[in-house]
This record gives sequence, C-alpha cells and structure tokens, in this order.
Amino acid sequence: MAMRLDGKIELVAGAFSSNAEKSRLSGEDLLLDPNRVYPHYKTMVERELQLPVGQRIDFVSIVTPNRTHVPVAKAFLESGFNVVCDKPLAFNLQEAIELEQLVRRTGKVFALTHNYTGYPMVKEARELVRRGELGKLMKVVVEYPQGWLINPIDEEGQKQAAWRTNPEQAGASSCVGDIGTHAENLTRYITGLEIDEICADFTTFVKGRLLEDDANLLVRFKGGARGVLYASQISVGEENSLTIRVYGTKASLEWHQEDPNDLIVKYPDAPRRVYRRGNAYLSDVAKRFTRIPAGHPEAFLEAFANIYVEAARAIDAEVNGHPIPADCDFPTVKDGLEGMLFIATAVQSAKGGAVWTKMANG
Amino acid sequence: MAMRLDGKIELVAGAFSSNAEKSRLSGEDLLLDPNRVYPHYKTMVERELQLPVGQRIDFVSIVTPNRTHVPVAKAFLESGFNVVCDKPLAFNLQEAIELEQLVRRTGKVFALTHNYTGYPMVKEARELVRRGELGKLMKVVVEYPQGWLINPIDEEGQKQAAWRTNPEQAGASSCVGDIGTHAENLTRYITGLEIDEICADFTTFVKGRLLEDDANLLVRFKGGARGVLYASQISVGEENSLTIRVYGTKASLEWHQEDPNDLIVKYPDAPRRVYRRGNAYLSDVAKRFTRIPAGHPEAFLEAFANIYVEAARAIDAEVNGHPIPADCDFPTVKDGLEGMLFIATAVQSAKGGAVWTKMANG
Amino acid sequence: MAMRLDGKIELVAGAFSSNAEKSRLSGEDLLLDPNRVYPHYKTMVERELQLPVGQRIDFVSIVTPNRTHVPVAKAFLESGFNVVCDKPLAFNLQEAIELEQLVRRTGKVFALTHNYTGYPMVKEARELVRRGELGKLMKVVVEYPQGWLINPIDEEGQKQAAWRTNPEQAGASSCVGDIGTHAENLTRYITGLEIDEICADFTTFVKGRLLEDDANLLVRFKGGARGVLYASQISVGEENSLTIRVYGTKASLEWHQEDPNDLIVKYPDAPRRVYRRGNAYLSDVAKRFTRIPAGHPEAFLEAFANIYVEAARAIDAEVNGHPIPADCDFPTVKDGLEGMLFIATAVQSAKGGAVWTKMANG
Amino acid sequence: MAMRLDGKIELVAGAFSSNAEKSRLSGEDLLLDPNRVYPHYKTMVERELQLPVGQRIDFVSIVTPNRTHVPVAKAFLESGFNVVCDKPLAFNLQEAIELEQLVRRTGKVFALTHNYTGYPMVKEARELVRRGELGKLMKVVVEYPQGWLINPIDEEGQKQAAWRTNPEQAGASSCVGDIGTHAENLTRYITGLEIDEICADFTTFVKGRLLEDDANLLVRFKGGARGVLYASQISVGEENSLTIRVYGTKASLEWHQEDPNDLIVKYPDAPRRVYRRGNAYLSDVAKRFTRIPAGHPEAFLEAFANIYVEAARAIDAEVNGHPIPADCDFPTVKDGLEGMLFIATAVQSAKGGAVWTKMANG
Repeated sequence: MAMRLDGKIELVAGAFSSNAEKSRLSGEDLLLDPNRVYPHYKTMVERELQLPVGQRIDFVSIVTPNRTHVPVAKAFLESGFNVVCDKPLAFNLQEAIELEQLVRRTGKVFALTHNYTGYPMVKEARELVRRGELGKLMKVVVEYPQGWLINPIDEEGQKQAAWRTNPEQAGASSCVGDIGTHAENLTRYITGLEIDEICADFTTFVKGRLLEDDANLLVRFKGGARGVLYASQISVGEENSLTIRVYGTKASLEWHQEDPNDLIVKYPDAPRRVYRRGNAYLSDVAKRFTRIPAGHPEAFLEAFANIYVEAARAIDAEVNGHPIPADCDFPTVKDGLEGMLFIATAVQSAKGGAVWTKMANG
Repeated sequence: MAMRLDGKIELVAGAFSSNAEKSRLSGEDLLLDPNRVYPHYKTMVERELQLPVGQRIDFVSIVTPNRTHVPVAKAFLESGFNVVCDKPLAFNLQEAIELEQLVRRTGKVFALTHNYTGYPMVKEARELVRRGELGKLMKVVVEYPQGWLINPIDEEGQKQAAWRTNPEQAGASSCVGDIGTHAENLTRYITGLEIDEICADFTTFVKGRLLEDDANLLVRFKGGARGVLYASQISVGEENSLTIRVYGTKASLEWHQEDPNDLIVKYPDAPRRVYRRGNAYLSDVAKRFTRIPAGHPEAFLEAFANIYVEAARAIDAEVNGHPIPADCDFPTVKDGLEGMLFIATAVQSAKGGAVWTKMANG
Repeated sequence: MAMRLDGKIELVAGAFSSNAEKSRLSGEDLLLDPNRVYPHYKTMVERELQLPVGQRIDFVSIVTPNRTHVPVAKAFLESGFNVVCDKPLAFNLQEAIELEQLVRRTGKVFALTHNYTGYPMVKEARELVRRGELGKLMKVVVEYPQGWLINPIDEEGQKQAAWRTNPEQAGASSCVGDIGTHAENLTRYITGLEIDEICADFTTFVKGRLLEDDANLLVRFKGGARGVLYASQISVGEENSLTIRVYGTKASLEWHQEDPNDLIVKYPDAPRRVYRRGNAYLSDVAKRFTRIPAGHPEAFLEAFANIYVEAARAIDAEVNGHPIPADCDFPTVKDGLEGMLFIATAVQSAKGGAVWTKMANG
Repeated sequence: MAMRLDGKIELVAGAFSSNAEKSRLSGEDLLLDPNRVYPHYKTMVERELQLPVGQRIDFVSIVTPNRTHVPVAKAFLESGFNVVCDKPLAFNLQEAIELEQLVRRTGKVFALTHNYTGYPMVKEARELVRRGELGKLMKVVVEYPQGWLINPIDEEGQKQAAWRTNPEQAGASSCVGDIGTHAENLTRYITGLEIDEICADFTTFVKGRLLEDDANLLVRFKGGARGVLYASQISVGEENSLTIRVYGTKASLEWHQEDPNDLIVKYPDAPRRVYRRGNAYLSDVAKRFTRIPAGHPEAFLEAFANIYVEAARAIDAEVNGHPIPADCDFPTVKDGLEGMLFIATAVQSAKGGAVWTKMANG
C-alpha cells in the first residue's frame, strides 16, 4: 500500500513464497503477469536478467524473515538490481559488514525500511535539533513497548511471531532486533548522537521462548549525553507506542508514533509549543513529506511511503545513469550496519549479565 | 492517493481542466494515454462511449466545484457510466432532487465522498449505537471548526477558497455546504436520527464575502433528541476539528477526526472505555475497514479509500451485471439529497433571521 | 475547605439546618462554640449583633438553596454584615434587582461564588484577551455538560438533586440556573463580551421533572460576535466538563475545567502554545493566584479559595474602614444580577419555543 | 495548606529559622502565640515539654534540609513527641537505621511525607494490583523528570536548589535523594515489589555541581520483574512529570502525577479503561481519600493532606492512648529506611561506574 500511494512504483514481478504454488496464487491475486511470478528468488534474478533492459524490475523489495535478507540482497545486487530491504539488515553482524561492502562495491541503491523516520514530524524534530533550537543535547529517552507477545502465540503457529522469536530465523535477538533497532535508528536520525556504550538487560518472560521479549538499556553517547532506551513485546495493552523525548540545554522535544502529527517542544521559560503537520510554519523538509492539509491526519502508510518515495528517487537516478540526488532522505545500508552493531553490542552486554559494553565497530 | 491505495482502481482517463492544454499537461503528469485525456467532460463522455465495452472507464470521479456536479453526473449517468461525486451533491435542491430521480431511473451506482464515514472508528460508533450500547439517544453535539478562511484569501486568488465562497460556484451556502454537511452526514450515519427542524444562525465575518463563513445551529430530531451543530471557517487555529459526541440514556460516545483511531465511550457508573482501531475486540465492520495493525495509526487517506473500496465493490457488481452487495457501505445519492435538504433548510432558517424551520422534504 | 486553605478565614458561627438539633450537631462536629451555633439565620443575625464589635462574624457565607439566598442576604446586609453567597444570586429577577440595590445602598461587600473564575489559567485567559493577543473576538463556544441527573434521583430523595430540580426551591430554571450561569459568567469574565440576544432551547428529558435538564443556546453578542452555549445535566458520562473556546481574528484559546492547569492558544500561522500554571512566563495576575510550583497541579479547591481570598481582602478593608482595594478580583452582586438577567432571558426564550430574545435589562 | 485543609490540624508552635529574629517574624505572620515561637528546635522541645500535657504540641512537622531530619526527629521522639518528617528520611543510611530503631523503641508515630501516595488514583492503582486485576507483575517503568536545575541556580543563591545540591546538606545524592526516592516509593506502594538489585548511571550535567542531577537506573525486582527508573533535574521543560506504568500478565496501568485524577488501565483484548477520581465505581480506599465530586479536579494539596489525615488519625490514637488503627495509610519510618537503602545502593552502583549492586539491607 505504501508503495502504491504515490503512483510512482508499480509491482510487476515477485517471488511470494518458498512454495511455488502459493507464490503463483499470490501473484494472481496481485494481478501480475504469471510469467513474472517466480517460485524462488534465484529464479527471479535469473529470469528478470533475461528480460531486455528497460523491461526488468528497477529494484527488488525484500520483506522476508531476517535470515534471508542478505542472501537475497546479495543475489540481486550482484546482478545489478537496486534493493529495498526490511530491517534489521542482516542475520548477524558479519553478514551485515559484508553486505555493506558489497553495496559500496556495486554502487547500487540500497534502502532500509526504518519507516518511522519517514514521518514529517520526525523530520521536523531533526530540523529543530540541527538548527540548534534545543541547544546541546544531554539526554534521550526512547521507548518502544508492544504487548502482542505476552502469550506464546509463537508456539501456537502465529507466523509473524514464530519467526521473530526463533533464533534460526531472527538471529541473536528478538525484541531488540525487531523494535529496539527502530528506537536506536529514530534516536540517531533525530539527534545525530553516536552511542559510545550500552548496558542492556534482556529478559525472556514467556516460558519456552528462546530470545528476549523485553530489553531495558542504559546508553552513554559520545560527547557526554545519556540515554534510556527500552523495547518490549510483553508490555500488555501497548500497541506500537514508540516514543522519543530529547532534552537539550535550551529546550526539549517529544514525539509519539501513535499520535504522529504532533511534535511537542518544551522550554524552561516559555509556553510549550505543539507543532502540527501540514502547517506553513514548518520547515521545508517536513512540508516536502506531507501530502494532505493540516487537520486531515496522515499516518503510518504515508510515513512508509516517504521512505519509498526517496528510495525511488535514488533508484530512478541510478537506473537512468544520473548521480543520486544529495538530498535523498532514506535509511541506507550504513544505517542497517549501525543497527546490526547496536544489536550485537546489546546482545553481548546482555549475555554478560547487563554489563557496560562499548559499541562494536563496523 | 485514496483510489490508488488498495490497487483496485486505476486512473485511465480524465478531463482535468476546462483549459484543454492544462488538461493535457495534467494527463501527461499522471502518465495517462494522451488519447484518453480530454479537453472537456462532454468530449470524455462521447469518446469513452466510442471505446469497446470493457475498455471504457467503469466510473467517473467528479471533483469539481459544486456548480458542475449535476451536469457532469447527468452526462455520465445518462450514457451508462457509474459515478463517484464530491459533496455537496448539487448546486441547489432542485438539481439534487432531479439527480436522485435520474440515479434511480438509470440504476447506476452513485457514490458521494462523505469521506469521514469511512473511518473504522466511526463505523464502530454506529455499531455501538445500533446494538443499543448507548440506550435511547437524547443529544448530539457535532462541530466542524476550521480557521483557514479567517483572511480574505478568496479575494487574493486562492482557488479552493475562491469557488467555495462564490455563490455562483458553491450555491447558496459556503460553510454549511462545504463542512456543515459533513457534520450532518456524520451524525446521521452514526445515530440514524432524522432531523425534524433546525434554527441556523449564519454569519459572514470577513468583509466582502458573499456567503456565510460561520454557522451555529440548534437541531431538533424526530423522536425528541436534541442537537447542537456548528461549522466555521473563521475559527482561527482550528484545522479540521470535526468532533461528535452522542449521548444516550445508558452511555455516550465521543470521536475526533483529528485523532481518528480512538473512540471514547463514557458510562454513568463505570470507567470510560477507549476503543482503539485495529484490535480484535472491535466489531466486524470496524475490522473490515482496517488495513494495518493497532498502534500503527491509520488516517484520512485510508478513510477516504474505504469509501472508494465500497463504491468499487458496487461498481464491479454493476459492471458485471451482478446485484449490488447488500452490505456495501458508502454514501449514496440519497445521502447527497439529504445533505442538500439540510443545506436548503439551514439557508432558509438563516435568511429568516435564524428561525426554527422544518426540514424540507425531498 | 476552600475557606480554610489559606488560614485567613475561620468559621466561628453558623446556622446549619432549619432543624435546630441538626444545626447543633453540625456545629459540634465543626468544633464551634455552642453559643454561636444557631437554629435559624434570623437568630444568628440577632445574636451576632449582640456581640461586641470585633467579636462578631466579619461576613456570612450563604450556601442554601436558591430560594433563600436573598432573604438571608438581606437580613445580614441590613444588619451591617458582609456576605458571600452561592450562585445564582436569587430566586427570581425581581429579587435580584432589589438585592443589587440593597448592596449598593449598604456599601457592604457582597461576593458571589462563581468559583471557576478563580482558576489562575482563567485569569491568564482574560489577560490574553485584554492585551489583544486574540485580536477582535468573533466567536465563543462554551459548554457545561454533566450527566448526574440522567436518572430521577431527585425523586429518590437525593437532596442536592431534589432542590435543584424543584421550581419552588430553584426558581424558573434548573440546568441554566445551576450551571448555564457558570458558562455565562466564565464567558463574560474572560471575554468581556455582553450578550445582546439569545435563542434558548430547553428540554426536560427525565419524565416527571418540572424544570429543564438540558439547554442549548445560540448567542449574539453586542458588537457582532456569536456564540454557542450549552448546559446539560443528562449528558451521561460527563462529570463537570465545563469548557470554553474563544476565537479572535488573531488567535484563539481553549480551557477545560477538568484539566485546569493548561491553557491552549492556537494561531493561524504558528505552533500552538500550551500555557501551564505556575510558570514564570505567565502574567502577574495568574501568578498572584497560584500557590504551588508548576507541575504540582492545583485544582478546584484552590480556585474556590481564590474567590474567598479576594472577598476576604475586600471584607478586611470594609471591616477596618478602609477603601476596598481596586484590584480585588471576585464576582460581585453585579455579576449575580447579570446571571439572573441571563436566566430570565433564557427562560423567556425557551417558553416562546426557543425564539430570539433580547437580553433583559437590570 | 495541606495541614489546614481538613480543619483537624492546627499549627500552634514552631521554630521557623535558625535565625531567632526570622523565626519570630515567621511566627507573627502565622498569627502564632509569640511564646510558642522558638529560636531553635532544641528550645522548642524543652519549652513544649514544660507545658502541661494536653497543651503541648501533638506532633512536630520537620521540613528542613536532609542533614537535620534525624537530629530534630530524635530530639522530639526522645521527649515523647510524634513526628511527621520530609523525605528522604535521613542524611545517610547509618542515621536512618538508628532512627528506625528509635521509632520502634519509643512507639511514637513517625510519618514520612511521600505525598504522591496520597493521591486517590494511586490508591486505586494499588487496589487493582492487590486484587489481581493486572495478573503477575512483570515490568515497571517509573520516571520523574524535572528541569528546574538546568541552570546553576544553586550557585546563584536559590535556596531550595542550593541545599539540595550540596552534599553537606543533602547527603550523598541530589537527584535520587530528592525525587528518585519518590519514584521508588511510589513503585513499592503500588506494586509491593521489592528491589533485588540496581544498576544506576549518575550524571552531573551542570558544571561545578557536586552531586548528580540526572540518574538512570535499571532495576531487577525479587521474583523476576524488571524495571526502568529514572529521575532528572535537568530535563528542560519538564515540571514534575512523575509517571508510572506497571505491566502484568493480564493488564497494565498508567498514572501521571500531572494529571492525577485519571488512571488508565490497558488490556490485551479489551478497550482501555480510564478510571476517574470521585466515581462510585472506585474502590473504597480511593473513595475514602476523595473530598469533592468527580469532574471537579483534586490535586497536589489534597494528596498531601491525605498523608496528614492518616498520620493525624494515628497521632490522635497515640495521644489518647488508643492502639493505632490498622488501616492507617501513610508512609512510615520503614518506608523512609527503604528509601535510604535505595539511595545508598544507587550511590554505590553509580560510584562503581553503574554496576549491578544488590539492594543494601536495613
């Protein structure tokens, strides 16, 4: 839906299941040309390559469990296709490092769907930080509580739950890998702060589960700022309550993903301000990513589409042999690598019993 | 965007401006076949009719100023096309009555984009009323304040403002015609109440403007319920703050368009409840119109798309010679006629100095 | 409690019931000197007068049903006592007019407990209006919904309900008299606007009740501003949701009694501002009526106490023969008379079937 | 003000400053008998003891900097007076341990003003936990951000700031000692959970300050629950935003001190509930601590007064030789000792570089 929103991207081919028949049926459902519905991603690479240039896909979108991100991405990149990929970037850090190198080597566009950074008011938040409205940053509190894994639905066959909590599909972390990385990415996007070290306390509350379903982290950023970051899948009654608060010497800001059209800015000596999406007083970047007028709310899909819009701009340039526009604003393989470093560091800290651990290097 | 969202509707033809060149350029921009970009709606009707059945448009979407709704709709209906049309239905009541008859006569699908009724939590509200959760309804407070017309931007060439405040384009009312009808339609959709009489106080606050930019109404419903309904275009600082509260003998409900994923229900003797979009505890109808999980907010576009989804279901049936599914849930020409009756009654009341006026009959 | 809060007022005498024994017991409970607990207000006047000057009460506080406000007030005023009295001022307009004259004649202090104007953020709202922050005022929406009378508890012996809905105790109006006047008073306090004419639609929803339990009003102010004012006792699930929104040409403001520490100001072209009680950036008048720091909320009792504080300042001056300080900020008998004029006008409009009625003159 | 609110406590004596003249003037201002205004707490103890039993103070209220809590408390306890004391209990842990023993030995009432536990909706929260509404508790997130110490006002002579950040007055911690203990106490009050170990990251952001002005803690509770607790004095724009969220297996709850009349309860499979103070559906304990009807908000002073009300009940019993009622609900010296253990443990953890540290034993 996010891809379709702006009418610039058309789904023309795909491998929709490891089961050939299922893939065929999905393709039918999506009204695709049956010749371009493939039983496997390798077939897809091969057969798309056989099409004349100009008729091939411009990019592939990878929306599979973590385990397969890198093999699939590699196959497409090495055959000259651009890639849009789900986060986290890879199954493990080693893979991520290799993929980052491959992307650099091929020069292809690689976009990662850290979709929350697509919200216009997140972009406004970044602008406020950049132009110094908050002063020097001192503290970040970022949280991503969910409650959907409070029951062992992973054991009961819920597919989304099953692979996310399975170390063979998800990697070394469930909660931090799935949503903690969003918190980390959102923090970095808005603040530009780099993590120096973390102390990560992982808990697995639901019996039988192999990976953590709750993670509380203390964070020390380079330059002296401090942070609290937590993610949880067992916080009953929470949906996707990603929230960030950033405190500087001059002002602070607050943004809630579940109420994404507002950005609250607090001052020590002036009334609070509520910036609202769609208004003329916002920065150009917030306006650039806004589709409809103020008061007619935008939400998740538009934010997601903003990632696609920007990736598509870059891909369009790449496909047409132009340089990629400097102002393209989407998460790249570097963000993905940062996320994997964060996950690896958190896992290492947690394994040591929640000890302070320096951020790993890429 | 709303049409594109679900991938079931494709824009293939259009007349995008009364200026042929502008229309051509718009079509180009939309990547349309130049042969199906027309300089005028009449040309469009003629030329689409010349295409073989199956290649013609399935329906036309009318998004022009009020004055042209009916002529355009008539031309397409009479040539056998289905129609989706902006509200209000018509330029005046007489036109509306005739159009309603024409739709009945032709048997074509006619959908009106009272888009706010597409929100899932509005549908949940209707369900709560229908299954008696609120008891007998006693009072409705519905408001739609906007502030965008506080300055005479209509005189300064802002096109959207100019036609909406011009009686030759908009008809006998600006504020009630443009947004008061949304309040009326939302009320009727949720409560099922029928208006018996109204007392409408119109004001034109901005000098030189010919139609009202603020309207306060008292409402008496059949059966004894009472209401307050107001709409305003000069309420500075408001965006699209459409809000409804419905009070029954057993409970009351509250919904805000700017925060559309929540529905608040209040009881005399129990904690308030906040129903949130996307949850399993909601009624089937709210779930049917939901695309993404709870906590990932949906908003205006999805609501708008829900009108298209349902209209498209009906149109699909019509085009294929099937009966229109009974559960199709979109505003029809009858809703449009009700809206025009409401506008006409409000205008009459206001002209008399805000006197109680019985609802006109269709 | 509100009287006690600041330690400046001590309850030393009283007539607490028309039943002498009950009055005695109440006095005992309040740890009063039994000699100053009286069986009747007349006895109280007589006996307090017999005490030496300096030992008498400084003022009487009248917290009885409407019917007795004026007789009691008269008795005390005529004997030289100052008065603090519940609203509405009187049982009917004639009484109110006479009382206002009496107060003027005696020169005594007469304070009316329109307590909501005691909230610091209401005072800040008035300041914003006064210094032109909102521009010229155009529209007011003020509402006071309650739900406590949805059931016939007045028939079931609930005392507070019984007298308020009894025309022999409450006067010609229940809902408007009890809470509509608060809405009217709050509007006048903040905006300074004077009502020119109103159209009042009264309804009695609960069978057997003799006075209205719901009232919806359209208002035209002198100078062209318009308003919506409603009050309700049958709005199920509402508690004391007094809310006001004031729209000017430059900005608008919004305040909720149930969330009284915030004042929201909205602009056409700038982020919304949330003024919060207790901060240094507020006006002097808001700060003068604040007791504890920002973020430690204040509420109803403090607002009520602010009325007493100011009345006490005036009474202190009166008792000591000083002129009453010009900046004393409490509702007076004139406010009470305005309220009675409002009630009388609303009742007259409603009796005529909700016809436009010019505000009565005092 | 909180003491005065219910008319059960009268201020009759005091030592208001270490400067005798200042103390005298304060006493005058408070309308006290000059004979009972003392230049020093020791004089106060001596001279009150010389008064006949029945004319002496019933208890002393200690509202001095931390350093003096224990010496003053000891002097009064040892002379047979009951004590109400500000938190934290003592200057250091050793003092706290001795004081707790002294209180036990003397059998006197000792109340600590952890005032936030006086809010009715905090009591309701405890009730919900106690009766199992939340299931087994798994996670607590509690935060107390303030921003008032962002500037070095302690260096500029602001008295409240100066002693709180001075280790010779405040003890080994500023931020945790002053407000972190409130977070700890609130958590223990609502959940009953006992802390097993903590990891505390202290930061001093303002140059020249000797104690931490920001503290982020991870918490492990006995029984397996986990927590995040933070307190901050440099979170610009925050006032007293104490907030707690408690997650169980069946439901979760959320309460905000700045919006204290609401308690939000979230379920995995049902609409959220908002419990509101003053309603009949609340538990007896929440109702017992409520003074005014629903919708007329109560706030900080009433909560504070609730601590006094309960302490006064106990003191009244003690003074009259009765057993202290079992249901008295106020923080005691044991809570104070727990708080000091918490502070000491946090300081130790922080000194070690934020290492996991087992909770100290009393």
